[in-house]
Amino acid sequence: MRNQPYAFIGCEGSFEDAGLVIFGAPFDSTTSFRPGARFGPAAMRAESFGLETYSPYQDRDLVDLTIFDAGDLELPFGDPSPALYAIRAAAGKILQAGKRPVLLGGEHLVTLGAVQALAAVYPDLHILHLDAHADLRADYLGQTLSHACVIRRCWDILGDGRIHQFGIRSGSREEFEFAAAGRVFQEKFTCRGFAGAAEALRGKPVYVTIDLDVLDPSLFPGTGTPEAGGILFPQLMECIRLLGSLEICGFDLCELAPQHDTSGASTATACKVLREMLLAVSSY
Amino acid sequence: MRNQPYAFIGCEGSFEDAGLVIFGAPFDSTTSFRPGARFGPAAMRAESFGLETYSPYQDRDLVDLTIFDAGDLELPFGDPSPALYAIRAAAGKILQAGKRPVLLGGEHLVTLGAVQALAAVYPDLHILHLDAHADLRADYLGQTLSHACVIRRCWDILGDGRIHQFGIRSGSREEFEFAAAGRVFQEKFTCRGFAGAAEALRGKPVYVTIDLDVLDPSLFPGTGTPEAGGILFPQLMECIRLLGSLEICGFDLCELAPQHDTSGASTATACKVLREMLLAVSSY
Amino acid sequence: MRNQPYAFIGCEGSFEDAGLVIFGAPFDSTTSFRPGARFGPAAMRAESFGLETYSPYQDRDLVDLTIFDAGDLELPFGDPSPALYAIRAAAGKILQAGKRPVLLGGEHLVTLGAVQALAAVYPDLHILHLDAHADLRADYLGQTLSHACVIRRCWDILGDGRIHQFGIRSGSREEFEFAAAGRVFQEKFTCRGFAGAAEALRGKPVYVTIDLDVLDPSLFPGTGTPEAGGILFPQLMECIRLLGSLEICGFDLCELAPQHDTSGASTATACKVLREMLLAVSSY
Amino acid sequence: MRNQPYAFIGCEGSFEDAGLVIFGAPFDSTTSFRPGARFGPAAMRAESFGLETYSPYQDRDLVDLTIFDAGDLELPFGDPSPALYAIRAAAGKILQAGKRPVLLGGEHLVTLGAVQALAAVYPDLHILHLDAHADLRADYLGQTLSHACVIRRCWDILGDGRIHQFGIRSGSREEFEFAAAGRVFQEKFTCRGFAGAAEALRGKPVYVTIDLDVLDPSLFPGTGTPEAGGILFPQLMECIRLLGSLEICGFDLCELAPQHDTSGASTATACKVLREMLLAVSSY
Amino acid sequence: MRNQPYAFIGCEGSFEDAGLVIFGAPFDSTTSFRPGARFGPAAMRAESFGLETYSPYQDRDLVDLTIFDAGDLELPFGDPSPALYAIRAAAGKILQAGKRPVLLGGEHLVTLGAVQALAAVYPDLHILHLDAHADLRADYLGQTLSHACVIRRCWDILGDGRIHQFGIRSGSREEFEFAAAGRVFQEKFTCRGFAGAAEALRGKPVYVTIDLDVLDPSLFPGTGTPEAGGILFPQLMECIRLLGSLEICGFDLCELAPQHDTSGASTATACKVLREMLLAVSSY
Amino acid sequence: MRNQPYAFIGCEGSFEDAGLVIFGAPFDSTTSFRPGARFGPAAMRAESFGLETYSPYQDRDLVDLTIFDAGDLELPFGDPSPALYAIRAAAGKILQAGKRPVLLGGEHLVTLGAVQALAAVYPDLHILHLDAHADLRADYLGQTLSHACVIRRCWDILGDGRIHQFGIRSGSREEFEFAAAGRVFQEKFTCRGFAGAAEALRGKPVYVTIDLDVLDPSLFPGTGTPEAGGILFPQLMECIRLLGSLEICGFDLCELAPQHDTSGASTATACKVLREMLLAVSSY
Repeated sequence: MRNQPYAFIGCEGSFEDAGLVIFGAPFDSTTSFRPGARFGPAAMRAESFGLETYSPYQDRDLVDLTIFDAGDLELPFGDPSPALYAIRAAAGKILQAGKRPVLLGGEHLVTLGAVQALAAVYPDLHILHLDAHADLRADYLGQTLSHACVIRRCWDILGDGRIHQFGIRSGSREEFEFAAAGRVFQEKFTCRGFAGAAEALRGKPVYVTIDLDVLDPSLFPGTGTPEAGGILFPQLMECIRLLGSLEICGFDLCELAPQHDTSGASTATACKVLREMLLAVSSY
Repeated sequence: MRNQPYAFIGCEGSFEDAGLVIFGAPFDSTTSFRPGARFGPAAMRAESFGLETYSPYQDRDLVDLTIFDAGDLELPFGDPSPALYAIRAAAGKILQAGKRPVLLGGEHLVTLGAVQALAAVYPDLHILHLDAHADLRADYLGQTLSHACVIRRCWDILGDGRIHQFGIRSGSREEFEFAAAGRVFQEKFTCRGFAGAAEALRGKPVYVTIDLDVLDPSLFPGTGTPEAGGILFPQLMECIRLLGSLEICGFDLCELAPQHDTSGASTATACKVLREMLLAVSSY
Repeated sequence: MRNQPYAFIGCEGSFEDAGLVIFGAPFDSTTSFRPGARFGPAAMRAESFGLETYSPYQDRDLVDLTIFDAGDLELPFGDPSPALYAIRAAAGKILQAGKRPVLLGGEHLVTLGAVQALAAVYPDLHILHLDAHADLRADYLGQTLSHACVIRRCWDILGDGRIHQFGIRSGSREEFEFAAAGRVFQEKFTCRGFAGAAEALRGKPVYVTIDLDVLDPSLFPGTGTPEAGGILFPQLMECIRLLGSLEICGFDLCELAPQHDTSGASTATACKVLREMLLAVSSY
Repeated sequence: MRNQPYAFIGCEGSFEDAGLVIFGAPFDSTTSFRPGARFGPAAMRAESFGLETYSPYQDRDLVDLTIFDAGDLELPFGDPSPALYAIRAAAGKILQAGKRPVLLGGEHLVTLGAVQALAAVYPDLHILHLDAHADLRADYLGQTLSHACVIRRCWDILGDGRIHQFGIRSGSREEFEFAAAGRVFQEKFTCRGFAGAAEALRGKPVYVTIDLDVLDPSLFPGTGTPEAGGILFPQLMECIRLLGSLEICGFDLCELAPQHDTSGASTATACKVLREMLLAVSSY
Repeated sequence: MRNQPYAFIGCEGSFEDAGLVIFGAPFDSTTSFRPGARFGPAAMRAESFGLETYSPYQDRDLVDLTIFDAGDLELPFGDPSPALYAIRAAAGKILQAGKRPVLLGGEHLVTLGAVQALAAVYPDLHILHLDAHADLRADYLGQTLSHACVIRRCWDILGDGRIHQFGIRSGSREEFEFAAAGRVFQEKFTCRGFAGAAEALRGKPVYVTIDLDVLDPSLFPGTGTPEAGGILFPQLMECIRLLGSLEICGFDLCELAPQHDTSGASTATACKVLREMLLAVSSY
Repeated sequence: MRNQPYAFIGCEGSFEDAGLVIFGAPFDSTTSFRPGARFGPAAMRAESFGLETYSPYQDRDLVDLTIFDAGDLELPFGDPSPALYAIRAAAGKILQAGKRPVLLGGEHLVTLGAVQALAAVYPDLHILHLDAHADLRADYLGQTLSHACVIRRCWDILGDGRIHQFGIRSGSREEFEFAAAGRVFQEKFTCRGFAGAAEALRGKPVYVTIDLDVLDPSLFPGTGTPEAGGILFPQLMECIRLLGSLEICGFDLCELAPQHDTSGASTATACKVLREMLLAVSSY
């Protein structure tokens, strides 16, 4: 009789053998509207047992891969600095071991920790960013470490031309002007240009950050700030399929706040997106 | 230290300076299936703080306009006559001051009070009506003042050819026959003919009434009677965009019953529709 | 003063006069993920009063037909054998009286009872099956009578080439291989081939089983295992319309678990699907 | 095969044989805070199947009595006058047939219809009233037919000294002064004096009206206006036990708004209270 | 970096060192009213992180004990026989290793598996049973393996005089007569006699089964069949305290159905009861 | 037509005339388990309209007092320092104007801001503290500004013997030892000694902080960490009554997280506690 490891379905490999390492960052202290993304990773693991490990979309099966789910980091709430430090350290250890990090948020700010670690290893890192919100504020109510500023903080590290945003449909006028000034590539409302961007990034190290609220709230209401007019599931699947030909050196899924969607459909959808992402990037 | 006015985001102007005046009619006593639309206006104000004031769809910002949110009327429940009287009076005062009323329901019956006030000022008033339900019953269980009869009561005032319905997908056989007889223009299921109607109404005074259940319940389940097969958000946005070239002398949004959608997506969507409507008609 | 019969709206005919007989099978004991489909039939009857009896899609009205709603079977929970026996017996009685059974699940396993009864009367029975899940497992955790095996059990009875699946987007690799081997016709993800299948089945006895989770969870989250990427309401309506030219000898709707969608939209949608199905097959 | 009557558990007798006749009044249009009591009677019937028919408290069983559950009245919403008229008529028919009415609300205003009918038959009618709220307002926002005025309206009919209130813990200063002036007997907060009142009413015709919000909201949150500091279940059971020695000529249970308590505990408690009331008054 | 074991808080010992071994039986297929107890053990583990390991009631701390949480058994749904077999086997292995089983249901039927294993080791086993329901039916709708029959099945094994029930307030007349005939000791409504029973059982092997619905639904609504009039938390704590002087050879907590109480209070209470039980029996 | 101020019911006075000034601190970033207390103040204002202004407990009416509700502070999320600074500043302004602050949390940490301001004015400040949790940790996961440390931080300011805790039933062993060492007066589980403490504090400046989770979760499940075994409503009312004879120089209510209790009973109870507190301390 032994204690079952508690992992995302089909991700019960060991750290040593795994190429992809999942870890959760259950942090949401800077969420300004409706908190709850801290519960995202745990909900995904618990609900993953309603998902098959086999994908008929890609004709691949998680059980044929070796993935390690390291569980959640224990993070203090409040001031985000120690949490970001811990996320950066965890991603760093994974990279140092020659593996790729898969980060489950939490609020979108957690992406910053992973990008800090990856940028240290890959100086020419690019980011593919799917989101409803631009997240390009210089600060939010005086705070610079905020979910509303996270991509701006990544830009601080990477500089112009490295970030490609898709599906953006909410932000301040300043954020849209920041993008229009050429700081980041930004596609408003849709992700039709994703294939072109993927083509252009071939051979370059790419981090993918998916704020799941890029999906239309009809399918994904379980998030802090649902924003009508999002992309639909087949469109997200098409983007994911395109990742198969890229050098994805890590990715994250953020902003599932499961308790806002008591139907469980949002959590089930997040699980399916994670499965498809894991299968899509596994060939690299 | 002062008491903050409690208004829809970006609508903190004064009555004197404002061109558009928002007021809520938290009434739902004739709702026959699931009540709760009375909580719509308050939910929209409270949740509007999750919305940006800037619209990337129209590249306009609420903070550049002057809009006054007058709060909610205090309405008695039960017999709808006193409530309708109060709504008519409030809309009348706004019109008399040379401003345009923006009514937040409540059940759809509240539209009647606004139409009574507007018809007194604009004898050639036309109505653009987006809804899942025809609302053309002569009476409902013997009551003539009912949400199920509200457009029929407007027709009583305006007569044939003045009302244009879109998205209609539910009603009794009699209601559809009433429309088919030419009393009102009616497009079933979709709003493809909206552009043509808008074109035809150029230069005429138009009132817009949006029963938010015209939206598909996948996006807008927070309403008394969700009805599958509705129009999608991009289609509604296209209709709203078309209003920019019309003489909109007032409008309403009705039938958000926020507690039926605990995810908050319906309320967030209603807020976004209101922002887009306010920005679209502001150029007039 | 008399006790009102409690029936689905517009289905208050007598058994003797009715051509279609509705009965509920409130059973969900083999559900492996989230139970609750047992509450589906009762929720549909209770919520059907928010639905019109008239369909603008088909220009037909339930009140012009004679349909008998026999209420729910009283089924024991746990071991599914007695429940399946009771469902088979009820469907058998309806068929013996020259009427057609309309079964409301309950989990999808209940379909097996109806198919057993129909196969005894129609040796050349075919099945049209709409579902997110293949349900073709040989067994599930050792149990052969499971919701996850129900179509495989139907295949045990009917054999190769009799079952046509649409919308399938979840299953084990083995289930998809079973279909690919020609045991059942299977369309993955979509139902574009439904018209062709309907054409091919003209003149043959057809049973239709709709696991309502074939619908996208954006519209139908109220089910045990929501699976993103489903078909949309207009597509399901088009399939239903095509049934009008077939010899439908019975049908079922399964897997509404109403408590998972507190907005009521899933239940309202199930009611609308039932109304459209009843009207579509009534001409036969 | 026949349509099962849909009745409260153990109340499947015929009108002819029954001494007690249950009927529902699903009306809540004058509710000023949170509507939903219209769904009370249907929820009680549906959930009554989780209740035993046998009471270990009284060692009696509903199956040994003959009770008829007549289902719900079909009532229009909005203006309460037609609804009250229909309730009065239904109660009148039951009384005329020599039976006793058991009314399930609905908001508390429905009590007025029953009291009108009973007062016509029993000129010396007394009322035992359990409630959190005094319901003694002369009017509410100008409306005299309101849930907040219902006991005042009963007093209009019966006059001073006929109404005994218990558990009252909310009201305007005027309502408490009205009671203090001797118009009605009023016990604030508790029901310790219930035994004395019951003793004093022996041999007189008594109507019992229980606004279920008299119970503490810890046990009964499923109501429009939960009010902390209520009586506990054993105390209510003791009051019910005392009714066995009185001439109860009818009673009602009001203000269950089931959707406000998604746990179902409020509905289950209302069912249990109804079972105990039916058993307690059956000996008369 | 390693996968954290996922255990109830403070129960992260190894099987080898542990004196108490927790295991979950997520089974609820025979639940006749509202299923969901299958989710009880997982919810308790996830929510246990809101609980302190230290008890100010007993001045003891879980971290001072060595307890192993073995996770949940994987049980098939439907026919309960294989599930009961697996539970019996798991409890047997724990007993064989000289440890004591702590079973987390699931529906109450799971108790039977544990009692079968314990009775094989302790022929003079006694049961202390806290519950709202007698669970003494001979069968339920023809099924003998049902949650409603579980204590009767235990009696089949142990015979007269071995079972002591407390808090019982629901059942059929036959169940109460069975108890009254001396088959089991039964205290209706309360647990005042628990101290006397504990005194009498000193030195005898005792299994404790707590159907958590023995608690009043005001505190514990998260269960399949809430039943008003239950015991309060301090009374349950007093019973638990008394167990410290007994030879408790195993115990279970059943019937938490967490999704019925969205506030989480029921799950938090179940966690607290488990902590107190573990601490109380640890001295043996 | 004017914008209604949006205030707690009966608290619509001006700042100038008011003796008591209510302000909200919608902050919950350090909440370690379930966030949501940020929504407490807004929910209380919105739901206060279900409450009467008159208290039959104290025979006083809010409309006879002059209270100003200043609305909510706009606080950044994440690092608590700026939020605490803003709270301290607001309380300071109120005190400077010769008025008394009434703070609505938010998580319990917000109390620290108010105590900092009060301690600067009243060097001999005492605190009466009602809570389920001791909140006496030196730090929590390395953070010293945490809801779990708030009373310890107050002790840092005030020193030994100034803080009186009641109802405490959860904490680490170290927290209870800290209290047992005489640092703070602590009554575990109950508040029987409140009268004695009130007597001893007569004539001294007293701040009252009520973490509403001191109430039993049966009545108050709408909080981040419900903890069974709490005090009941009449006991809290008795404590409040005793405050009438003390020099209460400010008070707060914290930890209502309204969305966890969808029934609204927790919010309604918080409103009632606020009304009673305002009335009780108004005589000073």
